[in-house]
Amino acid sequence: MANENLTINADRLVRRIAELAEYGKTPGGGVDRPAFSDADIEARRYVMSLMRHAGLNVRVDPVGNIFGRRESSVAAMGTILFGSHIDTVPNGGAYDGALGSLAAIEVAHTVAEAGYRNRHPLEVAVWCDEEGGLTGSRGFIGELSQAAVNELDSYGVRLSDKIRRIGGDPARVGKATWKPGSLLAYVELHVEQGSVLDSHGIDIGVVQGFVAIDQYDVTITGVPNHAGTTAMDERIDALLPAAELALAVDRIVRAIPGNQVGTVGAFEVSPGAPNVIPGEVALTVELRDPDSARLKPIWQSIQSELEAISDRHRVSFTAHCRQSVAGIPTDARLREVISQAAEELGLTTRLMPSGAGHDAQKLAQVCPTGMIFVPSVAGVSHCPRELTRPEDVAHGGNVLLRSVLKVDEW
Amino acid sequence: MANENLTINADRLVRRIAELAEYGKTPGGGVDRPAFSDADIEARRYVMSLMRHAGLNVRVDPVGNIFGRRESSVAAMGTILFGSHIDTVPNGGAYDGALGSLAAIEVAHTVAEAGYRNRHPLEVAVWCDEEGGLTGSRGFIGELSQAAVNELDSYGVRLSDKIRRIGGDPARVGKATWKPGSLLAYVELHVEQGSVLDSHGIDIGVVQGFVAIDQYDVTITGVPNHAGTTAMDERIDALLPAAELALAVDRIVRAIPGNQVGTVGAFEVSPGAPNVIPGEVALTVELRDPDSARLKPIWQSIQSELEAISDRHRVSFTAHCRQSVAGIPTDARLREVISQAAEELGLTTRLMPSGAGHDAQKLAQVCPTGMIFVPSVAGVSHCPRELTRPEDVAHGGNVLLRSVLKVDEW
Repeated sequence: MANENLTINADRLVRRIAELAEYGKTPGGGVDRPAFSDADIEARRYVMSLMRHAGLNVRVDPVGNIFGRRESSVAAMGTILFGSHIDTVPNGGAYDGALGSLAAIEVAHTVAEAGYRNRHPLEVAVWCDEEGGLTGSRGFIGELSQAAVNELDSYGVRLSDKIRRIGGDPARVGKATWKPGSLLAYVELHVEQGSVLDSHGIDIGVVQGFVAIDQYDVTITGVPNHAGTTAMDERIDALLPAAELALAVDRIVRAIPGNQVGTVGAFEVSPGAPNVIPGEVALTVELRDPDSARLKPIWQSIQSELEAISDRHRVSFTAHCRQSVAGIPTDARLREVISQAAEELGLTTRLMPSGAGHDAQKLAQVCPTGMIFVPSVAGVSHCPRELTRPEDVAHGGNVLLRSVLKVDEW
Repeated sequence: MANENLTINADRLVRRIAELAEYGKTPGGGVDRPAFSDADIEARRYVMSLMRHAGLNVRVDPVGNIFGRRESSVAAMGTILFGSHIDTVPNGGAYDGALGSLAAIEVAHTVAEAGYRNRHPLEVAVWCDEEGGLTGSRGFIGELSQAAVNELDSYGVRLSDKIRRIGGDPARVGKATWKPGSLLAYVELHVEQGSVLDSHGIDIGVVQGFVAIDQYDVTITGVPNHAGTTAMDERIDALLPAAELALAVDRIVRAIPGNQVGTVGAFEVSPGAPNVIPGEVALTVELRDPDSARLKPIWQSIQSELEAISDRHRVSFTAHCRQSVAGIPTDARLREVISQAAEELGLTTRLMPSGAGHDAQKLAQVCPTGMIFVPSVAGVSHCPRELTRPEDVAHGGNVLLRSVLKVDEW
């Protein structure tokens, strides 16, 4: 089949990533293009022009998502949706969601140039305000209430006013919702943002799922005391058990096979003076795993250890779950499609969780969803030094193209 | 000898501690009597009246120290000085320096009532502004410059104006200095402020010296990163080595016989968010020992451990000495005198360092100095709950009396 040899125009894709990075470019080489900013509005205009060049039918939905559609040669079959986002964090980089968005347009451009007769409608999605909390994709799956749209943000600006700026229709957000049965699949290409692929020299990450997150607040209480007059034997130092707990979290999480991570990120010592024995440490334990069910047993091990540590150090403790976000897997068939596409291109792959949030995790709630990662150099992201090498951009674009063509055979 | 049976009037001493606590008494049962406050001025007046009752000749020196002198039966012999301070920290307790000051007056009162013929002049000292930085005793040993007296404090008040309020003569601080050869010894009774005596059920602490203090600033630098996208193997978490260091400081300090203490008191984790891997920890290591020379080897052990820990965790570190205060021992003969006095009274003793600062450490620079500790219940001090039991007040007063009488035989 002719499709077998179809490849994207990698040079064009790399050039367009550089062109898009001009919108919101900072003196330090970063990209400052938060959703709804002037730079975002101009970038959206640029992206829509590229969509039209690719022969796509462009529309902006009521939430502000941009869609570019290529109709199918066969009537009434489910749409293959693929894309990402082009907004950035403040002083972010040129790749993040831009790479996946432009690669999706490049895929559409490639099939158009090849005169490919797609069985399913192909639709490129550029989701609105990913960095602000997956606003566009949440609107698309019906998670964004009219009340939420009318809320003021921390700067006193209503989301509805921001959506109106970019051509959305905030009074009709309910109409942004997908139509049940209309979607065959969603596939997103994104930079990894971690260093797993880069450090292991792997070309493509096949995302197995979006991680579940459990966050715990732990407070360990000892007795603050004079560091000069209190002998070693008389101390009830809160820092020592807290230090043991931080090490235990790391040890317990590493001891189990799998992709789970555990982090003690916040760690506040009181009173925190050089000459006072710490009386209290307030810390957080965050656990992530693609499978929500695996987190509880890990926490139970940590809590047992915390009890033993506290007994040994004669301190008291409290521990509460502050937040629990359920994980969601990607679609098994799509993982297979992406792996095969990569293998056919001679690329190495690794099945891995997505530790960060993405629009795809919202889409996964409503349709079969797949996600492709390409390496981030040194795992750096959300800053000017963010980089995905040109060859990895090409690999990602071609894996996306081939995956879309494979799904089109469904 | 009649002296053998001389004992203080413990009821009177306990009653006077309660009376002195009325000056600056707080609704919560504490004592708020910072140096130079109205409460301090009234308390000084009360204390001077007690001195006169004890037959002492009272004077206020140019720095504001109060002295009450009982002349000797033999001309031109060195003075035996004993006392403490009556100022408190804000919202402090009733014992701290008050106990030792009133016990010193009680000792003078007891020998006066007994018609004891002292060979040496006996002089009770109530040092000014101990809590503010040993102001009075520093003035007495010549460490307080005229420039320092003219400085503004953090409230914009000149020390000279404060000294004038309490009857000092700030223009003549140089005249406050002791006369070389005039002092035979200085003995101070004070509450321990730690819990060593109380927790071990020991009656009397014989202070072996005032500790040397070395403080180090340590910064451990890893790589801050996304707690979701960074796999366990890819992390360079600064908290883990810092936690190991805190535990190592405790382990190393405890492993050596002696009275040294080591404290990691300040411990700041950056950026300190639940979902970000710690990139940096800035912490302090404070080491105290009566013998300055013992601190360096302890630090060297800690530093070796820090190097090994940093290698293992692939982090970098810096370590700088921020402060080094030399220790000073008490006088060996006076330690013996105090120990014997306690033993003759059937009291248990423990040789121990003074971890906190006291006027006695200033006096130790110019004359043979001894220091007696009595138990602080639960080691609590500098707060309203500060308590030394009446029997311990009596023990302390009697050990001070007997020590003074023994020194008088020198």
